[in-house]
Amino acid sequence: MSDNSAIGETLRWKKFPVLNDGFVCLVDWMGSDDAVVQAARVSYGAGTKRVSDDRTLIRYLLRHHHTTPFEMAELKFYVRVPMDTWRQWVRHRTASINEYSTRYSHAIDSACETEPGAWRLQAKSNRQGSEGFLSAEEGEILSREEAAFHKSARDLYTRRIDMGIAREQARKDLPLATYTEAYWKIDLHNLLHFLALRMESNAQIEIRSYAAAIAEEIVRPLFPVTYEAFLDYRFGALTLTRLEQDVISRLAGARKIPAALDDFLAMQDEAWRPLERCRERDEALEKFRRLGLVRPE
Amino acid sequence: MSDNSAIGETLRWKKFPVLNDGFVCLVDWMGSDDAVVQAARVSYGAGTKRVSDDRTLIRYLLRHHHTTPFEMAELKFYVRVPMDTWRQWVRHRTASINEYSTRYSHAIDSACETEPGAWRLQAKSNRQGSEGFLSAEEGEILSREEAAFHKSARDLYTRRIDMGIAREQARKDLPLATYTEAYWKIDLHNLLHFLALRMESNAQIEIRSYAAAIAEEIVRPLFPVTYEAFLDYRFGALTLTRLEQDVISRLAGARKIPAALDDFLAMQDEAWRPLERCRERDEALEKFRRLGLVRPE
Amino acid sequence: MSDNSAIGETLRWKKFPVLNDGFVCLVDWMGSDDAVVQAARVSYGAGTKRVSDDRTLIRYLLRHHHTTPFEMAELKFYVRVPMDTWRQWVRHRTASINEYSTRYSHAIDSACETEPGAWRLQAKSNRQGSEGFLSAEEGEILSREEAAFHKSARDLYTRRIDMGIAREQARKDLPLATYTEAYWKIDLHNLLHFLALRMESNAQIEIRSYAAAIAEEIVRPLFPVTYEAFLDYRFGALTLTRLEQDVISRLAGARKIPAALDDFLAMQDEAWRPLERCRERDEALEKFRRLGLVRPE
Amino acid sequence: MSDNSAIGETLRWKKFPVLNDGFVCLVDWMGSDDAVVQAARVSYGAGTKRVSDDRTLIRYLLRHHHTTPFEMAELKFYVRVPMDTWRQWVRHRTASINEYSTRYSHAIDSACETEPGAWRLQAKSNRQGSEGFLSAEEGEILSREEAAFHKSARDLYTRRIDMGIAREQARKDLPLATYTEAYWKIDLHNLLHFLALRMESNAQIEIRSYAAAIAEEIVRPLFPVTYEAFLDYRFGALTLTRLEQDVISRLAGARKIPAALDDFLAMQDEAWRPLERCRERDEALEKFRRLGLVRPE
Repeated sequence: MSDNSAIGETLRWKKFPVLNDGFVCLVDWMGSDDAVVQAARVSYGAGTKRVSDDRTLIRYLLRHHHTTPFEMAELKFYVRVPMDTWRQWVRHRTASINEYSTRYSHAIDSACETEPGAWRLQAKSNRQGSEGFLSAEEGEILSREEAAFHKSARDLYTRRIDMGIAREQARKDLPLATYTEAYWKIDLHNLLHFLALRMESNAQIEIRSYAAAIAEEIVRPLFPVTYEAFLDYRFGALTLTRLEQDVISRLAGARKIPAALDDFLAMQDEAWRPLERCRERDEALEKFRRLGLVRPE
Repeated sequence: MSDNSAIGETLRWKKFPVLNDGFVCLVDWMGSDDAVVQAARVSYGAGTKRVSDDRTLIRYLLRHHHTTPFEMAELKFYVRVPMDTWRQWVRHRTASINEYSTRYSHAIDSACETEPGAWRLQAKSNRQGSEGFLSAEEGEILSREEAAFHKSARDLYTRRIDMGIAREQARKDLPLATYTEAYWKIDLHNLLHFLALRMESNAQIEIRSYAAAIAEEIVRPLFPVTYEAFLDYRFGALTLTRLEQDVISRLAGARKIPAALDDFLAMQDEAWRPLERCRERDEALEKFRRLGLVRPE
Repeated sequence: MSDNSAIGETLRWKKFPVLNDGFVCLVDWMGSDDAVVQAARVSYGAGTKRVSDDRTLIRYLLRHHHTTPFEMAELKFYVRVPMDTWRQWVRHRTASINEYSTRYSHAIDSACETEPGAWRLQAKSNRQGSEGFLSAEEGEILSREEAAFHKSARDLYTRRIDMGIAREQARKDLPLATYTEAYWKIDLHNLLHFLALRMESNAQIEIRSYAAAIAEEIVRPLFPVTYEAFLDYRFGALTLTRLEQDVISRLAGARKIPAALDDFLAMQDEAWRPLERCRERDEALEKFRRLGLVRPE
Repeated sequence: MSDNSAIGETLRWKKFPVLNDGFVCLVDWMGSDDAVVQAARVSYGAGTKRVSDDRTLIRYLLRHHHTTPFEMAELKFYVRVPMDTWRQWVRHRTASINEYSTRYSHAIDSACETEPGAWRLQAKSNRQGSEGFLSAEEGEILSREEAAFHKSARDLYTRRIDMGIAREQARKDLPLATYTEAYWKIDLHNLLHFLALRMESNAQIEIRSYAAAIAEEIVRPLFPVTYEAFLDYRFGALTLTRLEQDVISRLAGARKIPAALDDFLAMQDEAWRPLERCRERDEALEKFRRLGLVRPE
């Protein structure tokens, strides 16, 4: 395993663009994949044989949720993010933050703009998500309105400032789409947790874009072995509940795999059977199809 | 010391209004002043004489920064707060939060409005603060503009929703003044830390109003002994730096107390002396005047 | 869903014995299963239809790692634990602790004793574990030696105290098996995390005994719906890595389920194939056998 | 302000001895005094004039408890510590730890030994402290007993290991004085908090030795400006309670400074007056004497 200082230096302060006017960049970091190995090996005292090579050890640690060695590496970013997205971001409490202060300074004169083809429709099935897009023609209208609204919001802010209103109060009507900037420092373990949650398909697309940029542009090159293990064992993992395991056992025992939908229904969990609609059953079916245990529709 | 369950029951779900349309209320709590005492006394094993009565013990603990017993009590609030204020609030990481989700539900149709006489002017000396107010006549204009802006922001939001835009995206241009709601749960030690920071004179007036309501309406009746000790030893405390202590010693040694300004300047710290403007010296002078050690101007 | 105050009152201060002289007991708590539901529902604003009943909602939250509502309930315990076990216990950082102080008071005159039949042998395969027991005859010798050692350690401590040595120094040679006592306060989410790690088969038997007592005697009656969901979706869950999912898909696609060992080996991950010994392959095989996807040996 | 990489490289892995066989050393670090400044300046947007030089800014931040910029630097240590001391150390929760595992490896064959002249006597006034020493002659006896006890403890451990007992169980009777080793990673703000508590005169001498080594040998050279500010404004600070401030004001108003003891008693707080013994009054008197406000006895 090798030193990441050369690759780190090429990344430092390099702004990876996100959304229309945001970015993430690496400011500083401490440790490489080696730091994880180093910390894990403190368990193995002098005279103990080396049980596994470094890559195998990192993969073992990540697979078995031995999380503390991953806390031994640290990353510091500088980010520019719409406040709307930042509201979700700061919910991750195990990180250090210094944010641009609009009490001290004038608010950043930029807001996240939406392209005509990028207005998303409310998802039907998932109450917290979106699916599909408004037509570009209708989107054109919304984008124009948005631009006009951003301008009026900025004018209001500027006029208040010009009248001598305190910045801390003048800012009260900035749109959530207004950009803010911050230093954000977090250890590798907690960063992977952030990525696991924010790269997921049900995370909002805006924060997913930031998570993807951090993951692919910065974490992957800086911690290549850890990141690969993260994809294999955590982000790409599939969890089977106790109930799902039982259904699989029954299907396998009856030699019904790959199963028809009827087989699946016949061997479903007794708690699901009386229900006409059952989200847990739907989830099980979807997982089993993904695994090839139940035939596609 | 007595049980706080009766007083707690009278407080539960009672909404104390803050700002034009916000509130705080107590939802649940665990422990009373007794819980602090109970935890502290675990140190004193069986057979050890009772060293002090409960009130004296709580005051001793707080005076000497023995903070862990205060973690043994817990409070849960329900709050309605402008997002602008909430942005400051959530920076306190040692708390649990469940916030109203504008991905799941329509944004709350209410924003923090400013009275004509409540527009604050930018402070000259303190770059992050405010001092004084705009005249009510000029404020009238700003308040009218604010109302119009809030209406246009709401119209924009509603129109997006009506066109089928996902709530998670439609919300992007809500003004920061829009109210949100949340459960907020925190232990007594961390709550006192929050209060110490947010009741301070340089905290923004909006969050100070919330802090004051929590402190006076809920913490004081629920934890009377702890709260009194907090005021005496923490919130009302004054800290003297090593340099300030030396100046006081010199003034006292020279029998110059109460001192004239010239005496103070003559005996100031050597690091301050060459500086024409020195914020640290100004701070020292202000403290000394507060203590009566230097005569008022 | 019902109030847990009656059941809580029957539990309060009831000492559930663990090991030869340890215990756990509930001192106080805040919230029930209802508190989880209450916090989760803040997302669903007024006028939104009730999407699911309470039990279904709790199970959904736990299944999908929506952890914050589980932070809204809190438990406080009083425990008596060997210091050796306590060393592992305190590694869980998201909890509040007040421990019996052996600076203030004489050390508790009790140490964890081992029955003749309870001396465990070092595990061969698992370098951090144990398997099987020493014969009771040999164990008899060790238990006698242990008793003598505990006595000599206590005599040494007492003699130091009698000579006027400070308690903080006299304690330096107490055996790790010496009992300590503490208040331990934690929210339900973090408690479940503690339980998931400490009820696992590779946790040391001593701390597993404490975790089991807390789980079965206190959490189960106090939070029945949450605890059931925890067992179904978390403690009883089985995670398939990206590599394992691919192997299952290949086996299912080839209609080889339940598979013979040779089928499994034929369709294993390419990274495993060249290795004579491969822990990850062993883990996969064990999981697949548990699911009935590969036939028992 | 300058880069600390050169000084850091001279420190890395350099073991500073503590106690008879312990040490602390710096393994890695991220940031210098500059990192604090950099984070603090994010508040001051483009076009804002540079309000103060770097040293003044750091001192201002520390004096005013603006703690978050100090979280932006990170330090990682490797330490060797008696388990007794480690029990206190790990109570600081905002740090990352990987400790030598005596489940995986044989316990370190070394325990903290006490010199004949280093046996401390129980403090009379301070129930948790020590004062003065046993005579070297009596200490000689205790040191000999200690050595014999350490040997017998080690023999017991070794014999258990030789009989095949699992390491996790064999260790149960190690004396608390046995050394352990660990990586310990913490940000600069939380490290300063650790130092403030553990360098204090009432911290146990053993952990004070570690804190002093970390502070003087590592933090001072690596973060010289921050460390100086820490000494001036935090470690060397003196806090006056609300009550004490009032007494000072009265004394100053009556032109009684420096005051005689009788003056102090005449103007004491009304709550103290009726009490024959009053710890709070004693503390006030001690502070006032330190400041020269009350004459020495």
